Amino acid sequence: MLPPDVQKLVIGLRAGEQRALARAITLVENDLPGSPLLLQSLLHAQVPRLVGITGPPGAGKSTLVNALLNIWTNEGKKVAVLAVDPSSPFHFGSLLGDRIRMARFYDHPDVFIRSLASRGALGGLHPRIFEIADVVKEAGYDYVLIETVGVGQSEVEIAGLADCTVVTLVPEAGDMIQTMKAGLLEIADVFVVNKADRPEADKLWQNLRILAHQKANGVPETPVLKTIAGKEEGVSELAAAITHQLNTQSHLTERQQYFLVEKVYRLIQSERMKPFSKKALLLQLQEAMRQPNFNIYVFAQQMVG
Amino acid sequence: MLPPDVQKLVIGLRAGEQRALARAITLVENDLPGSPLLLQSLLHAQVPRLVGITGPPGAGKSTLVNALLNIWTNEGKKVAVLAVDPSSPFHFGSLLGDRIRMARFYDHPDVFIRSLASRGALGGLHPRIFEIADVVKEAGYDYVLIETVGVGQSEVEIAGLADCTVVTLVPEAGDMIQTMKAGLLEIADVFVVNKADRPEADKLWQNLRILAHQKANGVPETPVLKTIAGKEEGVSELAAAITHQLNTQSHLTERQQYFLVEKVYRLIQSERMKPFSKKALLLQLQEAMRQPNFNIYVFAQQMVG
Repeated sequence: MLPPDVQKLVIGLRAGEQRALARAITLVENDLPGSPLLLQSLLHAQVPRLVGITGPPGAGKSTLVNALLNIWTNEGKKVAVLAVDPSSPFHFGSLLGDRIRMARFYDHPDVFIRSLASRGALGGLHPRIFEIADVVKEAGYDYVLIETVGVGQSEVEIAGLADCTVVTLVPEAGDMIQTMKAGLLEIADVFVVNKADRPEADKLWQNLRILAHQKANGVPETPVLKTIAGKEEGVSELAAAITHQLNTQSHLTERQQYFLVEKVYRLIQSERMKPFSKKALLLQLQEAMRQPNFNIYVFAQQMVG
Repeated sequence: MLPPDVQKLVIGLRAGEQRALARAITLVENDLPGSPLLLQSLLHAQVPRLVGITGPPGAGKSTLVNALLNIWTNEGKKVAVLAVDPSSPFHFGSLLGDRIRMARFYDHPDVFIRSLASRGALGGLHPRIFEIADVVKEAGYDYVLIETVGVGQSEVEIAGLADCTVVTLVPEAGDMIQTMKAGLLEIADVFVVNKADRPEADKLWQNLRILAHQKANGVPETPVLKTIAGKEEGVSELAAAITHQLNTQSHLTERQQYFLVEKVYRLIQSERMKPFSKKALLLQLQEAMRQPNFNIYVFAQQMVG
């Protein structure tokens, strides 16, 4: 039996109440008491609805999300947005607080927006993003958008988590594509060339088309779309491509299975590491380093016991 | 007592034999038998010599490394280079194999070059980079350069590992700086504006100067240098700045202590997770997901036992 307060939260969550959702996220985000029980009572409806919007800084991801919100709310859909802000792992603070363009959706009854700092997870997403995504999925939104800033780590994570990953690039990002080729192709379900009115846009679009064409036999080609998010151009085609990708996904992809294993592995890991605090380790390490013949591998072995 | 083959390797390593170093790295890189014993017998001489060269793709890091090799070998110094290639975490292969410009140093008696794929560590450095760096340090090179590609995760890791972190940027990277400000400042011991003959170089240089000036009272300002690595311009100033930073570092920085804790934590973690294989977890997970009422958090809890 769940404690009454968690029970109440779960009921509110399933009813799609925004306040219950916000409180449930806070619970899970901060690993507050009740969080494990809440997570263990999720029904995990297997409806694909998680959309990752990723790409380098300055690619216009927020503007794109804004334009998608516009389209989907006009269709009467409910949309949740998780915005993962970049933050310094040392300062534990988030850098981009203002998402001004989204402002008009903050009070929309069918839209739920939440910013998450990545605080401390080195360069990656929020350390509890999997759990938070599970909570949001439980609230019955038609689309759950996760906007991530950055290239690398967080893109790969988002691709494992999401049912559809939109990789957003701008014409200036040509160099990046050269280095990331294979990685991008693994990650993207849809490519977007945003700010497509800029020079070099066609070249990027062509290069991505060639890249998308290299997929293995039988695998459908990754769509490559052009948008000018600021003018809402090309966005309805993007919305359609996302919806198509979600609707045609009947079972977990290999990538998602791989990621679920990662997720379970991390959950186990966090249990197994509970006896070890980094604060205590620092003190023990400082002490040990004063000894002659200090060796860090010997020290670690002694800590395991 | 060490087994004779590990003993021999340790002796060769301390004598600075390139072949012994190469074999020791292979041992550690692949976690082959003997690797733990080798690591536990390192003397960890506390001489600062690890130099991280980091920055976004296309910033000219390899060219810069090449120019530094030129300067230092002319001074009769021994230099080791660890080049961390980007690779897809799904393909486990490395993308940039060719480092043509470095070619002439491959046979130089005072230069040791090794490429490492990041294989599988999501977006980060090689999973055993700490261990490999410790091994290289043991071989008595005057400078150990670690060149990392990418923005985010790997930069932060390299900054914790290195005694001097050079953040290389190009004029086009203006956008990136806006998003990464605080993070960059935490990471960089030296800023380099490479390809400084391009337009916008002065603007970037100015912005970095302003950023570097924001450091807390008493902390020396981070130097901001201009280079044109391809023409070897500004590189001797960079070499001097690196050497200065290494020579004035008398004790571990807070950042490095923080990172040592991370390292110990990960070593303990890897011991504690030995009973759990991802392959086995995948099979168990696939089975569990067929059951009604499957919940991933309950499943993970059951796995911990």
